[in-house]
This record gives sequence, structure tokens and C-alpha cells, in this order.
Amino acid sequence: MSDLPSHVHIHEEGPREGIQIEPANLSVAEKVSFIEALAQTGVKQIDCVSFVNPKRVPTMADADEVARAIRKKPGVRYTGLWLNQQGLERALSLPLDVVGSIRMTASETFSLRNTNRTIAQTEDEQRSWLSTYRKHGVPLEWGYVMTAFGCSFEGEVPVANVVAMVGRIIDLAAEFDFSLKGIYLADTVGFATPLDIEQRIGAVRERWPDMKIGLHLHDTRGTGMANVYAALRMGVDQFDSSVAGLGGCPFAEHKGAAGNVCTEDIVFMCHEMGIETGIDLEALIECARMAEGLFGHGLPGKVMHAGSLARFRAAA
Amino acid sequence: MSDLPSHVHIHEEGPREGIQIEPANLSVAEKVSFIEALAQTGVKQIDCVSFVNPKRVPTMADADEVARAIRKKPGVRYTGLWLNQQGLERALSLPLDVVGSIRMTASETFSLRNTNRTIAQTEDEQRSWLSTYRKHGVPLEWGYVMTAFGCSFEGEVPVANVVAMVGRIIDLAAEFDFSLKGIYLADTVGFATPLDIEQRIGAVRERWPDMKIGLHLHDTRGTGMANVYAALRMGVDQFDSSVAGLGGCPFAEHKGAAGNVCTEDIVFMCHEMGIETGIDLEALIECARMAEGLFGHGLPGKVMHAGSLARFRAAA
Repeated sequence: MSDLPSHVHIHEEGPREGIQIEPANLSVAEKVSFIEALAQTGVKQIDCVSFVNPKRVPTMADADEVARAIRKKPGVRYTGLWLNQQGLERALSLPLDVVGSIRMTASETFSLRNTNRTIAQTEDEQRSWLSTYRKHGVPLEWGYVMTAFGCSFEGEVPVANVVAMVGRIIDLAAEFDFSLKGIYLADTVGFATPLDIEQRIGAVRERWPDMKIGLHLHDTRGTGMANVYAALRMGVDQFDSSVAGLGGCPFAEHKGAAGNVCTEDIVFMCHEMGIETGIDLEALIECARMAEGLFGHGLPGKVMHAGSLARFRAAA
Repeated sequence: MSDLPSHVHIHEEGPREGIQIEPANLSVAEKVSFIEALAQTGVKQIDCVSFVNPKRVPTMADADEVARAIRKKPGVRYTGLWLNQQGLERALSLPLDVVGSIRMTASETFSLRNTNRTIAQTEDEQRSWLSTYRKHGVPLEWGYVMTAFGCSFEGEVPVANVVAMVGRIIDLAAEFDFSLKGIYLADTVGFATPLDIEQRIGAVRERWPDMKIGLHLHDTRGTGMANVYAALRMGVDQFDSSVAGLGGCPFAEHKGAAGNVCTEDIVFMCHEMGIETGIDLEALIECARMAEGLFGHGLPGKVMHAGSLARFRAAA
């Protein structure tokens, strides 16, 4: 028997993921209108911007302006992603919802190549963030284990390393008297199959039976939705995803590869299986189509092109 | 506990599905080279052509020529799809592997709209085919239930109708002293979720516990790979699929919708989970890329764009 949850919670990552990787240079007004449309769908958390070097990611140069221009809808959290202390300070200076997180990478090589820091150095960086959270009354929520299912430099990431990394994150939180809401396992480079999902979630739960698990999945090799289903069967009810399947993999080995799992495809599958999301699927499909218009090309989402089943049921 | 099969059998539908729906008018030589490349991957059955009215599907006008030009590889079956007695006679006149099938549609409206025949008339048509199989020593293998998961005209297709249709197919086979290899359930218009897969396979098995089940799945709304995984868990080891995700849905309501589940994505997922397919994934990825070149645009397959994990493992 499966243990499907009754309600799934989604963190919408489409604006950040899309703006970050798409070459199209949207205006501030376009970015804001996209974010505001998403907020009308019932999504409760939207990742809007990232605080990165504008020389490396020019399309994020106006992140502050975007953050300031959004007309916020009550009950929706508008977040940004920082990768260092400087980015965190920038987030704190803006009218955004700053939600504390711990972000560690299970692969040492990936950590070095992606952030120029060893795992030990990343741990120190997290202490700096945690101390800032304490100072500013920022709540800590999720700990993220990146490359939890494999690494494009190291290949396999042993299950034991993932479990060890979860332990380090729990210890880090405890050092600053925080308790975590749960742990996100991230398939950063799209290696996971459903069996990996079962094995790795199983290993974390064996050690910490009550730990809430979230998943950040990429559909790089077509297993994204199968992985979502495998996780749902295990009662996982927390996912990151991107409207229209926006995103991609900025690593050279994956040029042209697919992005994050697609929000409206997940919402469609959940609703059809009797799982609530609190999201209006038709409104979300409209946002996905809006994204194709804004970014100027077809996007990988499926239900956005085929439509939901509502009209067939109405016709029947 | 799941009941994953140790080996999965795939009927490759890419050439027929792709040529049928793509507007590009490939030459006979191009079609043949695509089919011959696929035969080198380890795929054991390739659906090459369909026998349809060239006025309705001009890209299939040269089906006979294609069938005659293929240099056959021993151990590979080269099939064609017929929809009526005339098409069956055409298939029999060509150097193709004529594999007998029974094809019924669970939805009366879909049957009428798609083939201009009621279900009862389709049953009579099947009798004509079965009698031809007997006459020509054609083996009967699978019975197909189309729209087994829903219908774009009738909406829901009750589980009981699917079970009843399986019964009618079994009776038809018995009328002509044939026994079936198994039953294919086809998600013709892409309505199925993993729970539907479990429910409908479960219902058929409850009545016929030893019946082999195959699945013909479309990824119209993004649930294709999740459905494959749900079926694998139930021990299903027979799938139709299309290299590069070629295909689509010719019905007006689904214009622009995704096609069949993608062969190399299934092969990738199976191999990574320890399930054999007998297919060389790298060679199949090359065929998928060849298809993009032939049809002149990007295709929805995922692993073809990201590549397999082999090079990361080699680098590690």
C-alpha cells in the first residue's frame, strides 16, 4: 500500500529559475507581472530573484528593483535565493520574505566547482548565515542537501554521505538553537530514479524517523515525474518545482537539458489522484503560457500544451 | 514491496508515429535509414509504417516502398499498422512481419469518431482480420484496448467497460481458436495517472490473474514516466514507446500536445534501476538525435539532450 499525502505543498521556483537561465532580458514590469500572476493561482511561496553577480547573471541585475516592485498578495511568501553572506544581507534590505535555510552540498568537488568553497568552508559560511538569522529574527526552515542523488564531477554520491550531510545540517541548526522544519534532498544534476528516491529517503528516515522530507527535482533525464510519484507514495508532501518546467542546468555538461520538474504537471497529477494542492490548475496553465510568451519560445511543460481534463468532463 | 521485472520488452513505435504526425516529408531513403539505425540498437520490434489513406496522411503514401527497401536485421521484427481489412491485405503483400492483433476501443464515441465504426461494427471487422490471420497462418499476439484510461469525447471511461472490453477481446480470439499473448491497455488520449494504472491493471488481473499486460502510453499531460514506473512496480514488462518521444495526438483537442512516452527515457530509467532492456542506450540516443535532424526540430525526449550518466561514471 502506498501512503499518498492528502495535500502537497509546492514552492514555486519558476521566476528565479527562468530569469536566471533564459537569455531573454525581461523588463522589471514583465518579471513583476509574471510573479503577480503566479501569486493569483494559490501558490503560497514564490522564489522571485537570486542575489548573484550581475556580471555572471546579467538578467538578475535588477533583482532589487523587481523585489521592490511586486504588489504583494497577503498569504503568499515572496522569496529570493542567496549563495553567500553578501546576498543574504541584500535580501534582508528588501521587502522580501527572508526564510532562513542551510545549504550544503554532498559532493566535495561539486561544492568547490559551484561555489568555490569546500564542504568545511561551506559549513563556516552557514554559521555566518545562522548567526545573521539569529540577529535579525529570521526563522530557520529547511536544510538543503544539494547533489543528494549524484554529481556530474564525482559520479555516484554514496548514500552514507547524504545521511552524514543531513546530520551535519541538523548539528549546525542545533549550534544556533534552531530546530529544522525538515530536510530537502536536491537532485541538482538530474541523476535520480524512483529507486534512488526510495532508497535515499528511506536511509534518512531510518536514522531520523520523524524528519520531514522535501524534494527539489530536475527532469534532466525524464525521470522527474516518476520520482515525484515515488516520493508521493512515501508520503512526501513538499516539492520545489517550476511553472512550465522553466529552468535548466547551468553546468556545461548539461547544455540544452531540461529544467526543474514542472509545477502544473505535478498539480495535474496530484489533483487527478485526489491530492489537494490549493492551486488553481487552469490559472497556473495560463501562467505557463504567459512564460512562453515572455521568454519567447516553447517550454517543456506538458499539460500547458494539452490542457487539463476539465473541458472533456464538462463536454461529457 | 514492488515487483519490478528483471527485463522490459519494448515495441518501438517512433518511425510510424513520427512519420504519421510530423509534417516533414522524408525521402524513402531517410525513413529507411532511420529504421535501420533503430534496428542496430537492440530493439526487437519496430513499427515502420501505417496503411492509411494517403489523402489523409500524405507522408505515409510511400509505405510500401519503405517496407520493401529496409535491409532487415535477423532477430528484429518490422511491423506495420493497419486499421481495416484493406490495410491488412496490404501488409500481407509486403516483406513485413505481420503480427496479428485485435484492436477495440472502450469508448463508443471515440470508436465512431476515430474509425467511423461502432464498437459492434469494430468487433465484426476484427472477425474479418482473425479469419485472415487463420487463412494466412498469421500468429495472433496482443489484444489492444484503446481509450482504456479515458476519452476526449466521453470523458471518463468506466473501469467496468475496460474489463468488459478485455472479455470481448478474449472471446473474439477464442472464436477463432486463438489464445492471446496478452492485453495492451492504451492511454490513447493521455488521461492516465499512476493511480489509474494501478486501478485498471488491478481490475483486469482480478478477473484474469495470469493475463500478461502491456501498456501503450502517451505523455500528453506529463504523467507518462510516472505511469511507466507505476506499471513496472506491478511487474508490467511490455511497453510501446517512441524514440525521442516522437508522435503526438492527431485529435484536434490536443494540437501541440506531447506524443508517446519516450523510448530512451524509459530505457535510461530501467537500466539505472537494474532492469534490462537488451537495448544499447547510447546507440538509441544517437537515433533520437538523428530524428531531430530528420524532422528538423527539437523533440521532447529528455535523456537525448542531457546524455546518459556513462561519461560521469567514466570521469569519476
